[in-house]
This record gives sequence, C-alpha cells and structure tokens, in this order.
Amino acid sequence: MLALVYQGPGQKKLDDRAKPAVQAPGDAVVRITKTTICGTDLHILKGDVATCKPGTVLGHEGVGIIDSVGAGVATFKPGDRVLISCISSCGRCGPCRERMYSHCTTGGWILGNTIDGTQAEFVRIPYADTSLYPIPPGADEEALVMLSDILPTGFECGVLNGKVQVGSTVAIVGSGPIGLAALLTAQFYSPAEIIMVDLDDNRLEVARRFGATATVNSAKGDAAQQVMDLTGGRGGDTVIEAVGIPATFKICQDVVAAGGTVANVGVHGCKVDLELERLWSHNVTITTGLVDTFSIPMLLKTVQSKRIDAAKLITHRFKLERILAAYDTFAQAADTKALKVIIEA
Amino acid sequence: MLALVYQGPGQKKLDDRAKPAVQAPGDAVVRITKTTICGTDLHILKGDVATCKPGTVLGHEGVGIIDSVGAGVATFKPGDRVLISCISSCGRCGPCRERMYSHCTTGGWILGNTIDGTQAEFVRIPYADTSLYPIPPGADEEALVMLSDILPTGFECGVLNGKVQVGSTVAIVGSGPIGLAALLTAQFYSPAEIIMVDLDDNRLEVARRFGATATVNSAKGDAAQQVMDLTGGRGGDTVIEAVGIPATFKICQDVVAAGGTVANVGVHGCKVDLELERLWSHNVTITTGLVDTFSIPMLLKTVQSKRIDAAKLITHRFKLERILAAYDTFAQAADTKALKVIIEA
Amino acid sequence: MLALVYQGPGQKKLDDRAKPAVQAPGDAVVRITKTTICGTDLHILKGDVATCKPGTVLGHEGVGIIDSVGAGVATFKPGDRVLISCISSCGRCGPCRERMYSHCTTGGWILGNTIDGTQAEFVRIPYADTSLYPIPPGADEEALVMLSDILPTGFECGVLNGKVQVGSTVAIVGSGPIGLAALLTAQFYSPAEIIMVDLDDNRLEVARRFGATATVNSAKGDAAQQVMDLTGGRGGDTVIEAVGIPATFKICQDVVAAGGTVANVGVHGCKVDLELERLWSHNVTITTGLVDTFSIPMLLKTVQSKRIDAAKLITHRFKLERILAAYDTFAQAADTKALKVIIEA
Amino acid sequence: MLALVYQGPGQKKLDDRAKPAVQAPGDAVVRITKTTICGTDLHILKGDVATCKPGTVLGHEGVGIIDSVGAGVATFKPGDRVLISCISSCGRCGPCRERMYSHCTTGGWILGNTIDGTQAEFVRIPYADTSLYPIPPGADEEALVMLSDILPTGFECGVLNGKVQVGSTVAIVGSGPIGLAALLTAQFYSPAEIIMVDLDDNRLEVARRFGATATVNSAKGDAAQQVMDLTGGRGGDTVIEAVGIPATFKICQDVVAAGGTVANVGVHGCKVDLELERLWSHNVTITTGLVDTFSIPMLLKTVQSKRIDAAKLITHRFKLERILAAYDTFAQAADTKALKVIIEA
Repeated sequence: MLALVYQGPGQKKLDDRAKPAVQAPGDAVVRITKTTICGTDLHILKGDVATCKPGTVLGHEGVGIIDSVGAGVATFKPGDRVLISCISSCGRCGPCRERMYSHCTTGGWILGNTIDGTQAEFVRIPYADTSLYPIPPGADEEALVMLSDILPTGFECGVLNGKVQVGSTVAIVGSGPIGLAALLTAQFYSPAEIIMVDLDDNRLEVARRFGATATVNSAKGDAAQQVMDLTGGRGGDTVIEAVGIPATFKICQDVVAAGGTVANVGVHGCKVDLELERLWSHNVTITTGLVDTFSIPMLLKTVQSKRIDAAKLITHRFKLERILAAYDTFAQAADTKALKVIIEA
Repeated sequence: MLALVYQGPGQKKLDDRAKPAVQAPGDAVVRITKTTICGTDLHILKGDVATCKPGTVLGHEGVGIIDSVGAGVATFKPGDRVLISCISSCGRCGPCRERMYSHCTTGGWILGNTIDGTQAEFVRIPYADTSLYPIPPGADEEALVMLSDILPTGFECGVLNGKVQVGSTVAIVGSGPIGLAALLTAQFYSPAEIIMVDLDDNRLEVARRFGATATVNSAKGDAAQQVMDLTGGRGGDTVIEAVGIPATFKICQDVVAAGGTVANVGVHGCKVDLELERLWSHNVTITTGLVDTFSIPMLLKTVQSKRIDAAKLITHRFKLERILAAYDTFAQAADTKALKVIIEA
Repeated sequence: MLALVYQGPGQKKLDDRAKPAVQAPGDAVVRITKTTICGTDLHILKGDVATCKPGTVLGHEGVGIIDSVGAGVATFKPGDRVLISCISSCGRCGPCRERMYSHCTTGGWILGNTIDGTQAEFVRIPYADTSLYPIPPGADEEALVMLSDILPTGFECGVLNGKVQVGSTVAIVGSGPIGLAALLTAQFYSPAEIIMVDLDDNRLEVARRFGATATVNSAKGDAAQQVMDLTGGRGGDTVIEAVGIPATFKICQDVVAAGGTVANVGVHGCKVDLELERLWSHNVTITTGLVDTFSIPMLLKTVQSKRIDAAKLITHRFKLERILAAYDTFAQAADTKALKVIIEA
Repeated sequence: MLALVYQGPGQKKLDDRAKPAVQAPGDAVVRITKTTICGTDLHILKGDVATCKPGTVLGHEGVGIIDSVGAGVATFKPGDRVLISCISSCGRCGPCRERMYSHCTTGGWILGNTIDGTQAEFVRIPYADTSLYPIPPGADEEALVMLSDILPTGFECGVLNGKVQVGSTVAIVGSGPIGLAALLTAQFYSPAEIIMVDLDDNRLEVARRFGATATVNSAKGDAAQQVMDLTGGRGGDTVIEAVGIPATFKICQDVVAAGGTVANVGVHGCKVDLELERLWSHNVTITTGLVDTFSIPMLLKTVQSKRIDAAKLITHRFKLERILAAYDTFAQAADTKALKVIIEA
C-alpha cells in the first residue's frame, strides 16, 4: 500500500509498504478514506520528536472504514465507518480510568510516532474499542477529520483548561490552525470578547470571520500593550498560548488578568521565563496538556447539531499520491493561506 | 408619587404615596424609569405569598436613576443610572459571603414583598452598594430590565443548577417568560438539542424563534413520551421545570436521563410525588433555587457584547398610569401573547 | 462447587453448582476467598428485585484469586489476588467513558442479580480488566471486602454526591452498615459536625465510636427537631438518606440547610413526598445514585495508608458452609449487633 | 500608643504613635490583644516591598477588641472580640463579589503595607464588616491569630489551589511556618502521602510530628530524586512551593506527576525557569495566589470543632514592649526553632 514514511530529519518518502494486519485481540485495521497533516508532523520532520524513528509511517488523524478486527473488539465490525482519535487508549490503566488518555501507560500519542500512522491506505489501530468512534450516518466525513486532533486539542487544552466562561474575555496568541480551533470551540461558552493575536494579517482576517471580536498584529512587538488597551487594562480571563515559543509565552503572561488562566496548547521546544516575582500575587493559573480526546463524542454532537462548522478549517484537498505537494502547501502557509489540508486515500 | 399598592388577595390599586426617603446609611432612593410585572406579582395578588402584607407597593424589577443616597453608600451618587436586582443583599452576612444572596439574613427577596417595591415613581433600595448595578453608557435600558430577575433566574436556577453542557440535550417544561429566559441563556453553553414543552402553540412558536431545536405540545398528556421519542429513549441531560405544578414536575422526572438533572425554576404551591422507587438507581440530581442574581454583572457583559438579545422577551409597553391595563395584558397571556411588559414611569 | 442460590421470594438454598467457566474473551473466573452479605441481598430475598430470577447465585462483593482468564484479559493472570467490584463495567460504552459505570450498557450491577454472584466458591467476572482490582501485597483482604460495595456506595452516593465540605455540618439518617460507611468516609473531608440519626441505641453508640459528633434517637418521632436544635436552627449542609423509606426521607428534607444537599444512598421501594411548596426557594439539591465504584482505587490507597480503618465494619465471621447462619445473624442485626459479616470460602 | 514602625530597609523602631481614629463610616478601631510576625514582615524590612513606605506601622495579623466603629459598621460594636483578616475587602467591588478579596480594588493586603498595621496597641481596620470576624465565646484567641494569614494562606494558596484529593500524594517543598500551615490543612482532605522537603532537620522533625508521612532533606541537592523514589517514580499529585526561590521551584516542577498541580504559596523575588519543553505534554497546572482569606469562617469552625490544632504553630511568646526580641527570635529560626511567635499587646 501507499504510505508516507519518515526517513529521518528533513526527509520523508511516499513509499510502498505492506498492508498492516491485526496483531493483538483489541486491534482494528482501518482503510483510510481521509487524513490530514498536523503541525506536529512538521516537528517530527525537523527532528524534534526523538521518539519517532526513521521508517515510521506518519500521521495521526483521519477517518476510514474498518477492514478487519481482532477477536477482542466488541464495538466495531468490518465495513463500519470510523473516526480515529490521535490518542490510543487502553481504557483500563490508571490514567485511562481517570480519563487522562494521553498518558495511557501503553498507548497515548503513539500513531505516526512510535507506531505506523494514518498517512497511508491502511492503518492498524490498537485498542480499537476505546480509540475509534462510529461515524453517524450522513455525517460530513471531511469535517470529522478535524475531530481526530485539532478540535479536541483546541477545546480541551485551550478552552477547558483555560476555563473560558460566559461573558469573559479571551485572548488567543497564535491564529494558525490550532489557535483557530481554540477560537471556534471557545465560542461554545459565549465569552464576551475574543482577541486574536498573530503576525499574519491574513490569519487575523480569518480569525475575524471565525468569530474573533478583535485582532492584534504582533509584528511590532507591542502585542501585550495592545491587548491591555483593548481590555481597559484588565487583560484576559483566559489566555491561550497557541504558538509555543518564549516570545508568545511572554505575551501570555503579560496579558493574563488577575485570577485568570494561561492555557498552553502549543508544543514547546525550549524552556521559558516565568515571572513569578510579579505573578506570585496575581492569582493566576498556568496549564499544559497533551490532548486526551475525551471530548470527541461531545464534539461529534456539536458538529451533527451544527453548533460548530468544523469544515471551515479546511482550505485544500489532495489525493494521497500527491501528499508531498500537500506537505509543501501546508508548510508554506503564509503564502498558500493553508489551514488544514485534506488528503484523500 | 404614583405607586401600585397591594390591597389584599385579588386587589390592587394605583395610588398616591409619599416618596420614599433614605432610612439607613446604606440606602439609595432610585427614581424608576422602567419596571415590569413578574409572574410572582400575580402569585401575590392571588394571596399565595403570606409575607406580602396589604399596603405594600408591588414590583421587584426595574432600572432607574439614583435620586439620593445614604452616608454609607460608596459606589453610587445622584444621577447615576442603575439596574435594580430583585434581591437585596447586605454583602456581609454568612450567606452573602457565600454568594447565596437570596438567603441574605436581612435581605433577600424583600422588594415588593416585605418592603415597598418598584412599580412606583420612586423606590428605596437597601444595601445599595451590593444590590444595584451601574448601567453602562449607551446600553438599551429596556433590555436591562430583563436582568433584574427573569434572565438571572432562568440562568442561575435553570441553566447553571441544571448544568447545561456543550453538546448535551436540554428539555424545558414551560415556555412562558421564565422558560424562555432559560432557553435564551441555555444557549450560552451550546447544547446540541433544546426541546421545549408547553400547552400553547403560540409560545412554542416563540420558542422555536428563540432557538429551541424541537417543541412538544403537552395538551394530549403524552409529553413525556414525545420527549423520550425525540431523544432516542435517553431523555434530557438537563430538564428545567419552568411551570411549578405536580403535572409538570411529573413530566420532568419522567424524561430526565440517567446521570441528568431536574432544575426547578418555578415557584411551587404544593408538594409533588418524587418517584424514588425508580429514580434511586438513576443517578439523578434535583435542584431548587430562589435566584441569587450573582450573574447580573456577567449577564450585563453578554448583553453589551450582543451574545444575547434580552429585549426579545418584551412584547408590550405601558405608561405607569396605565399599569392596571398592563397587568390585564400580562395576566391574559394566552390571548394577548404577552411575555414581558415594560412599564415606563 | 458450593453456592448460595436464590430460589424465589423468601427462599434460598446452599447448593452444589457447576464451577463457572470463561465465556467471553474478557471474562475471568475468580476463586472466592472472602465474600459478604449486603442489605440488597435481603431485598432480593424479599422479592423486591424483579431482575433477579430464581436459580441465580447471590452476592456481589468479595475478594479472591484469579483461576482462569479469557484471551482478551490483559491485566490479570491466574494466581493474582483481586478485589471484585459490585459493578461490572465494559469500559468502552458511553456511560463507562463518562465514568458512570453503574449504567454500563451491558454491565452495571449484574453480579448476583442477572448473572451468578460471589456467594460461592467461584464466580465468573465479565469485563475483568475493568471490573477487578489488584490487591496490593500485604493488604488486609478482609478489610478490602468492604471496598466491593459498601464503602464506595457510602462515599460516592453519600459523601461525594452530598458534597461534604471541610468545616461543614453533616447529618446521616440511618446508622446501619451503609450509614456507617458514609460516616467513615465523610471524615475524609473533615466536616465540623456529623450528626447520626437512628432508632437503635446500639448503632448510635457504634456511630459515636466511629466518629459521629452527636447522635439522635428517632424513636419518638422528633428527630428533625432534634437535628435543628443541635445545629442552631440551620440544619445540615449535607444530609445523607441511608435508610430508604418515606419517613426517613421526610426527616432529610426537614433538616437540610438552605443551599444544602440531600444525598440518597438507600434503595427506595416506594415514592416519597417532595415538599416543593417549601423547598422551591430553599436552594437545595437532592441526589440519587447507584454506586459506580470509580473510587475503589482511591479507597485502596486510603486503606493502605491507614487513613481509614475499613475492617471496623466487620462484626462476625462464618465459613461458606455456614452462610445460612450468616444470613440469620445479618438479618437480625438489632439482636446480634451485626454490621458486616465475612464469609470465608 | 506603642507601635513598631518601619524606618526603611533594615530599620525598625518601637515608637510612640497617636492612637488611630475612625476615618470612614466603614472603619473600626481595634485594640490589639495579640499579634504576630510574618515572613512578609522580614521581606519588608529587607526593602523588598516597595509599596511599604518608611513610617508605616508593621503587622497584618492579630486578634483584639473593638474600640470604636464608624457610622456605617453594622456587624460590630465596641467590646466585641474580633479576628483581623490580613486582607481588607470592601465587599462590593468586582473582585470582592467574585470572592477574590486579595484584589479588592480599594483594599487587599494594605495592613502593615500601605496603611498602619497591627504590631501596635491599636489599629484602624477599613471595611470592618467584611474584614473582621467575630470570635466565638470560649475560643483560644492565641490559636485564632493563626487564622489572620498563615492558615488561610497555606489552605487557599496551597491546599485548595493545589487540589489536594483524598488518597493522593502531596509533596510540600519548605517546612517553615507556611509549609507547615499547608501540611496541617492538607490533612483536611486525607491524602495518602505527604512528603515534606526542607534543608533543616529540626523542621522536618516538626513536620513528622505534624503529620508528614515522609521527609526529605534537600541539603545534598538530590531532593527531587528522593521524592521520585518515594513515589515509585510517579511524583506528587499536588506539589506545594512554600519557599519562593528558583531552586525550590525547580524541585517542584521536577516532581509533579502527570496531571498534577504545582501550587505556589511563597512570595517570589525573581523569575524562574519553566521547563515547558518537557512539561507541555505533562498535563500540569501551576498556580499562584495572594490569599483571599475567604476560608476564615470555615477555618474557625475547624478550630472550634478541634479538626485542627492551630496553636501547634506557636513556639514563643513576647510582650509588645519586647517585640524587637521577638523579631530576632523569629528571624533566627534555624537556631531558635521558632515557628510563629505571639506578641501580646
């Protein structure tokens, strides 16, 4: 089968690989119909993710059709249409019983990382009963690809960890796909203001279309001041860090209101300064989180009831055989204006 | 001054009364600009509210302008435009420090009940600093009258007590003003489904316009079955009782899902049957509540940011001198299609 | 093997039954070392539990040793010592993913109810990975029998649902095993007062030894007044209903403080009066619940760290062959002073 | 009257000052009977607290007797015995209505900082109704001095922010008075393990007496490793930072378990490194907080019901005229083994 294989830092190859097979009683093999590319895939290609070894098929998002299941799989049978969680969870270890599936002792984020992933014609999914979700009849499957990772991540790590409240003020630093996912899902809770911060005017324009009530271009280095001005000097009750570098974390800690929360959604590559000499008395909360995807069933309901238009995040479409072009388009987002690209297998 | 005075069961009179004066250091006298009539006022007139004695000026909602303040009032000065909470809270007793202002040991719901109320040209407000809210410049004052009681009640006693969740199923029994207030504020949390139950097709039509995803006419006595059918046999995660009689409470306990909540918003005049022989293993929660109005500042933000259109609830307008006609219109809602009526003083 | 078999209302028989075998990949067969009798077993014997058919082996509590496991069981192997939850949970259905295991769509309370139970030499446990818990080396296994049902029930349905708070006032109506389990676990949260209500002076004396700060004998019908007097007229912040009849529910609604909670722990056999005409404005919460046993791992830690002495509840011990005598002792608790009786298999 | 006056960095003087008088309607003047010294007073004396100007009377803790009250004070009258909160709260501004009294727009921590404090014969307390608490008859007033600041701080900023849970593992870095206050109040929630970390063996010995289940001497620089070893490599669910320097914050972030919380209780004088490159996927929460003292009424109940022995923290007693000796004793805690010193006025 066709599969995109990580070849070591800076290198990937669209290759022919053996179709995966069920290895454990809880496994399912899924024929991928649609997948996508995540910012994390670019991190792997930069060599930032040491756990991902050359030879691994990339990708941790997608929808498809059950091809075969192990003897222990109770919920799915061949032919069922399924949504794949980026997190594999056994459902029985300590963290899984606490719903912290990201820290499943034998699962977590393994797809396209420590085991072969979804950018291929087929993928083996461990713990299928607790890592796949049935697709309701008539659903827009393309939209549901957004539920594998990006919407749960924006929602759980940004909106829920950030405790977005009705009538509150939210600031989101970073208007890329993950920041926009936080923007879309923050609106579930009807905050009064959502201020979006980014360097790229195109992305800020998208943010306005997606529901931001104000935008701040951070190119001049005065983003924090602009946010404070927009909030009458109070800052944001919820501040979502959706970039993952020291400069953006600095903006976040500068604009969080007393009693507020800074929720880190982004992958961080290095340490940051935490200004406790000022923040110790500011009653703030700072959170980090790898997504657990416990919210997928709930997000499915919001998509089905049209409370959210997940398909909005999709800007481009490619066939699997053109996935290298898809990567180029996704990686050069400033030029291509790409958000999420759909790969059809 | 002109004031509507309760004269005992079945009797009210638009009368000339002395203008109230500051009695305690924390008092303010407010010149009413707009007030309204509440279902509770009708209860008083039926003689259901023993604490309200003949001779009391009715009314516990409204907006106005500060006329005078006592020596201890720190936040307001004559000329300030203010929103009046239906709950007077001292801000310092045990319940107030717990934000349960409805049970303030010397306040609570006293306006238009144990002390003279707002259906008059002037009203004395005890504990002004903690019972009045400044009206932002440019606000639609008529809309803000909805924040004195009805929207906080629908929100706090219905939506918050009922724990409305993103993606969940809500059923609201009763599509009068208070049920509609719950309907409007439930949407702050983006539930997937909101099913509205009432006897009156007009009110159900209003509910659809206000955001209900389905409606059930309960005239034929099969409302519970209809709700179960609409929810695939699961019932509602949140069920809001917005009528207050045994028959509607019965519907609520029949349609609440396992793990769900029945939130009582309505005033109840008699006891009800609680079917614990069935519900003991159903993991349900039942709540009651007199509104605390702690949500007024938050609701003000949602009105100002246009997350909610509070003015939608207003159907009729009268001058204070025609308040008796306003009562007639409000009391005969099935014919007049009245929801909330504004009284201009 | 020896097993206690339900024979229809009023009848039970210690019989010889075939040893159970693994039927599904997720099953385990456990050799019972210790089990016990629950008040619910008495309900079954009265004929109150329609789902339990004659011919069923009784019992849903116990500890034992894994005898055999199905192909899909990942966590346990023969020889492992295990604690059995009274609730069987598949770990993958909707309710299980929400941790409401009691409403597992294919499990829940089935042991000794719809399938054969633990009052036998062996028992088949479905969904073993998510329904059994490993016993730590050196643990007091007898004490752990209290973790199959009674302590999680007192804790989850009484203490957690009842929101026991540091410094608060708790009233527990019913000082039988389940009320005492609530009393023991309420102390995890350091309430200031715990008032225990019962008809039986012996049980009230036990309650005082177990940590009650005051006791009320309800024989004279003035229990509610006594509780109000003990609390300066405020009532209890948390009131736990640990009996399950209309008279005790009446006491609970009479003594709950404004803003407080009535948590039903007991099995109720008939409906009760809910006095909403008085409670509608009292800001109360009423909960019901079948135990989910999600707290078993946590309770294991508290037993191991000696934060709770679970063995305190054990008053009598019998061999399995004398289980009929054990039932007599347990059923005549007023005379025998029995709380929990251990059955050794 | 006698008062200890801050004279600028490094300098303090026991001086004769005019007795304070009521300045605003909400003020009370309290005759101090007992006060104490806080680590924060030492910070002021080092010159670390820029808001505190020379000439200010130090101290923000204490109990006393109402001497006089302003016209607006409703709750207290001369002769009443009162506990003074270190936080003055107006009770009506936005933060106060959210119970974040530490950020009261006109109050907060002002006593002994921006206005004259409690290390004197008399002190003026603004917003007396919401900043003083009545002392119950028969209470141990010395013990209640611990409720002005140190116990609420340990409890709110350490235990509540840190979300200490029944059966969980807690690590507290710093076994000085504030760390010990966190240790005492953490036990309200019955954690399974409480590991105390400090450089001083005497303080660790005190911690064991106060309920620590294990202690770690951090002198050799391997404290983090020792904590990880004690917890089987998991770390602490709640980690409380009770020192306030980069080295101790580093230990905290090294030992927090996945899904856990680092709660900062200490005053920090400089920024710290936050290792987001490792923590981003660790699902942690970091909190900071100036105490709000909303827990004082609850803590009063726990002291009165003997759930906590607050007097344990008191090691020395001095008369007000010997307060300079008291400061010496408190500042040289390693030698004197001082925890809290009571000053009798």
